[in-house]
Amino acid sequence: MPRISKKGQMMPSSPIRKLVPYSDAAKARGVHVYHLNIGQPDIETPKAAREAVRNTDIPVIAYTHSAGNIVYRQKLVEYYERVGIHVTTDEIIVTTGGSEGLLFAFNSCLDPGDEIIIPEPYYANYNAFAMMCGVVVKPIISSIENGFALPSIADFEKVITPRTKAIMICNPNNPTGYLYSKSEILKLGEIAKKHDLFLFADEVYREFCYDGAKHYSVMELTEIADHVVLLDSVSKRYSACGVRTGALITHNKEVYTAAMKLAQARLSPPFYGQILGWAAVDTPKEYFDNVLSEYVARRNTVVNGVNAIPGCFVPMPKGAFYCVARLPIDDSDRFCKWLLEEFSYEGATVMFAPATGFYSAKGQGVNEVRISYCLNVEDLKKAVKCLEEALKVYPGRTTK
Amino acid sequence: MPRISKKGQMMPSSPIRKLVPYSDAAKARGVHVYHLNIGQPDIETPKAAREAVRNTDIPVIAYTHSAGNIVYRQKLVEYYERVGIHVTTDEIIVTTGGSEGLLFAFNSCLDPGDEIIIPEPYYANYNAFAMMCGVVVKPIISSIENGFALPSIADFEKVITPRTKAIMICNPNNPTGYLYSKSEILKLGEIAKKHDLFLFADEVYREFCYDGAKHYSVMELTEIADHVVLLDSVSKRYSACGVRTGALITHNKEVYTAAMKLAQARLSPPFYGQILGWAAVDTPKEYFDNVLSEYVARRNTVVNGVNAIPGCFVPMPKGAFYCVARLPIDDSDRFCKWLLEEFSYEGATVMFAPATGFYSAKGQGVNEVRISYCLNVEDLKKAVKCLEEALKVYPGRTTK
Repeated sequence: MPRISKKGQMMPSSPIRKLVPYSDAAKARGVHVYHLNIGQPDIETPKAAREAVRNTDIPVIAYTHSAGNIVYRQKLVEYYERVGIHVTTDEIIVTTGGSEGLLFAFNSCLDPGDEIIIPEPYYANYNAFAMMCGVVVKPIISSIENGFALPSIADFEKVITPRTKAIMICNPNNPTGYLYSKSEILKLGEIAKKHDLFLFADEVYREFCYDGAKHYSVMELTEIADHVVLLDSVSKRYSACGVRTGALITHNKEVYTAAMKLAQARLSPPFYGQILGWAAVDTPKEYFDNVLSEYVARRNTVVNGVNAIPGCFVPMPKGAFYCVARLPIDDSDRFCKWLLEEFSYEGATVMFAPATGFYSAKGQGVNEVRISYCLNVEDLKKAVKCLEEALKVYPGRTTK
Repeated sequence: MPRISKKGQMMPSSPIRKLVPYSDAAKARGVHVYHLNIGQPDIETPKAAREAVRNTDIPVIAYTHSAGNIVYRQKLVEYYERVGIHVTTDEIIVTTGGSEGLLFAFNSCLDPGDEIIIPEPYYANYNAFAMMCGVVVKPIISSIENGFALPSIADFEKVITPRTKAIMICNPNNPTGYLYSKSEILKLGEIAKKHDLFLFADEVYREFCYDGAKHYSVMELTEIADHVVLLDSVSKRYSACGVRTGALITHNKEVYTAAMKLAQARLSPPFYGQILGWAAVDTPKEYFDNVLSEYVARRNTVVNGVNAIPGCFVPMPKGAFYCVARLPIDDSDRFCKWLLEEFSYEGATVMFAPATGFYSAKGQGVNEVRISYCLNVEDLKKAVKCLEEALKVYPGRTTK
């Protein structure tokens, strides 16, 4: 029997998925699980967008243009204009979710052995894409103490080598919920310019900014436009994760040309997802107002609730629908497993993603979990209560 | 401005796309272009499958299982059983088109520098995926003289090195239309076993076998089940190229586990494409009977028509909807460009894909074109007539 690749052997499991068997075990012993581990929103996909798919009646579901249907790209130009991002249809490649955009960006800009700096904790799936491309992730720690703000320029420069080719951020951030400020984005622009680096930004949570905070996009760094590659997706924006409609956007013509070759190799992004994405651009502002006030209520429930538990600390995030909490525990993997295997309170328990999976170095995140607040407020209250009770009896509780 | 990757610079353009600007030029000078260059069927997607999407009314278009919705996978098991392939739901990963399946297979089984043997001419997009993975394609020539039959075992063994990890076939073949016989598939099985190689098979044209010929799948090689990875897609089967619904199928648990990590990293295959694919499994036999008789008529129009032109030769293919024709020309790239830029007959011209793009070695395929017969018979007759007239006046015509 031939052996699989070394890459295949070393490929990390998703930190969000590795506890799934234990979750099944919890259900098997009759315990309800509050899923605070995954970023699948329960918010309705805008009805008009779903209806656009239902009303589609054409005889042949053919390939679309490899860069995406031109009518959809025109609609995207309109959307981006509205959020202050100026692009043309031939600077957009519609991708199969944000994930494919990332793969195109990595492959177009980075060769095996090239290094990419990512502030950590970071979205764990970046690792799989880096590994597929032979790219080396150089993490720099962002600290829970200052709410996971951007590390200093000095911290970036410490890890820059001749092989460094890019910096990557996720803004607002998954897993921390941190929203980078304008001055932080400008600082990133300076570093990218000074060291001639690409700047990749995953901005799929752009719409989810709270407390009146404004999102500042890397696309606004017009002075280094050729350095910037934006990765986007409709998944979270319109709660339409299943449609797999993302985009790679860049003013850099060389990057665009290389990415287009990859896009042509896979022929076409999904047809129906573009129909839905096209109609979704006209989603009225009220939809987002409602969604945002709901998420603010959820965030406050989780963050204030967890901060009220002795020994716990969560910085108040300004975006996305995640936060990272420090808990008085010995080992977040062990704790999360224990919650599912052994604990229950009033017939329920709670599932978190151990933060260890969002750091690259061993030992980081051992007393942190990522909390996704995609459930309704009542369930979140019960989940926080579960956590509180669990921490009273968890055998690996630390004194802090 | 940071430089793009070497990979990005070297990435080949699709041989199907590189003539598109010239095609636009033909249209600009008022000449109708018969598109015999692309494999986008004009056949209707089964109505019941399209209706399944139109009737879908759920509030949240969420991620599906990373391996694909379980109900869809169960339906696929039923489909495969019907065509003599025995698989279970946990041996199937639903992918975003056949392309993603290929990327998962390459990444799971092959490391950078590993070699894969592919009989050529072969589907040109394999090159892009190989390049993304750093995999080296070792082509072996299949000859137009014997209709592009499988090269001999000796030919395979000549190129096997310690880095050889896999053989890949496309069956029925794109671009040649060749259908591998049972004895050829058994021979491939022997080579794979003897040299401990993976055997990847792209069987997306399985349904398109003519003249009563039976498709023999690599999945029927039960003795070397662990060597085999099947790549499949609903694109051609149900003329639904836009839905992006494929599958990677293997009995090899290690390969499956590695591919699942990649599947989880990209979260989910497209939701709507699975709805359509699920309903399409129940497409009645009459649909295929009609489609096949239409394709046989088209094939006969093209193959008999081209063979009747002095100096031309096309082997009669038994599958898919492509053939490779040898023409009395100096250079197929030049000829195909000339057809679009300079030639017309009764206000029309014809677009082929130069076969050079389907070979890896310079000089191969210079007097061959790939013909895709996805147009109706009347248009195909006119296209063949165009070719006949063109060859009378083409400046680079050879005497043969």
